[in-house]
Amino acid sequence: MNHYPASLLRVIEHIAKLPGIGTKTAERLALHIMNAPVGEAEALSRSIIDLKQKIRRCSRCFALSDGELCRLCSDTSRDSSSICVVEQPGDMVAIEKSGAYKGLYHVLCGVLSPLDGVGPDSIRIKELMARVATEDVREVVLATGTSVEGEATAAYLAEQLKAHKVAISRIASGVPVGGDLKYIDQVTLKRAMEARRDV
Amino acid sequence: MNHYPASLLRVIEHIAKLPGIGTKTAERLALHIMNAPVGEAEALSRSIIDLKQKIRRCSRCFALSDGELCRLCSDTSRDSSSICVVEQPGDMVAIEKSGAYKGLYHVLCGVLSPLDGVGPDSIRIKELMARVATEDVREVVLATGTSVEGEATAAYLAEQLKAHKVAISRIASGVPVGGDLKYIDQVTLKRAMEARRDV
Repeated sequence: MNHYPASLLRVIEHIAKLPGIGTKTAERLALHIMNAPVGEAEALSRSIIDLKQKIRRCSRCFALSDGELCRLCSDTSRDSSSICVVEQPGDMVAIEKSGAYKGLYHVLCGVLSPLDGVGPDSIRIKELMARVATEDVREVVLATGTSVEGEATAAYLAEQLKAHKVAISRIASGVPVGGDLKYIDQVTLKRAMEARRDV
Repeated sequence: MNHYPASLLRVIEHIAKLPGIGTKTAERLALHIMNAPVGEAEALSRSIIDLKQKIRRCSRCFALSDGELCRLCSDTSRDSSSICVVEQPGDMVAIEKSGAYKGLYHVLCGVLSPLDGVGPDSIRIKELMARVATEDVREVVLATGTSVEGEATAAYLAEQLKAHKVAISRIASGVPVGGDLKYIDQVTLKRAMEARRDV
């Protein structure tokens, strides 16, 4: 590795710190950047600095945003009477990609995990309750993950939300579409069986 | 993809331009950079700008360098009577990693390829000849690749170097170490057979 000039080595080292990027790939990427037009390398470099300076959380739903309110919260065509609660911004993006939901979101920025010291005050539950109390919300969809922590968080939120006049639902869990039953784990199959529906 | 804020989208787009990086990976890396400490992201960004500003070619051997002369050309412990000719800086790094060579290098910055319009004047052959003529060189190792162009370039250089009193050698080609014969292509096997040595 010390066969490269220091300036190239530094880029390799920084790229190799990214998750899932080994030294070989970092070397290849750094050499590409070295050979790329100055403009391209500068644009990459600038976009990274720009990201760190501009990115923030939406003050209403805590999604990633470039401004005070995120794109969805500013979009009056969305159904503001429905809030879908997710753990992280990435979950919200995944649901958006599915195109199956037209309401607003609330990003908890985490999940209840007492063993890791994450209690209700550590994530954005207080802010969710405030929204349900003050906004004209009719439905809350609990779309936290199906891990033990995700389920516990959904259960906790369902309990807390009972005091409000809102419909509370939980995303369905079961066999993924296209999933081959013999490769699905037992817990998922058990749940799919329990949640079976008449056809 | 338009579910992310613009500043994040820009980083994803720039990272996705890198070779071998798909949109999914670019998304993952951009999210990591977004969550990383400001210092880490800035260091990455700065190292890229720094690379483009500092990196240059060694004025003697045309290897990548941060200064006028590269690390090897400045290293008096290297055997300056031997020059190993390679196509690209990466080839030099590969030979250095093998630890099998203690002389200096000459990077051609390309390979003869008449069909692509790359003739002797397009690559650093003139500079190699000047080094052989003026430096106290006793040996030239031709380590261009074993592609058609690499072989042709080696043959051309061997012809040109005949006029000088230098030993000319070509790196051996044959079956790679650990190579299973049944997976080796016929041209390589033919050459390995022709170049067989007494044991």
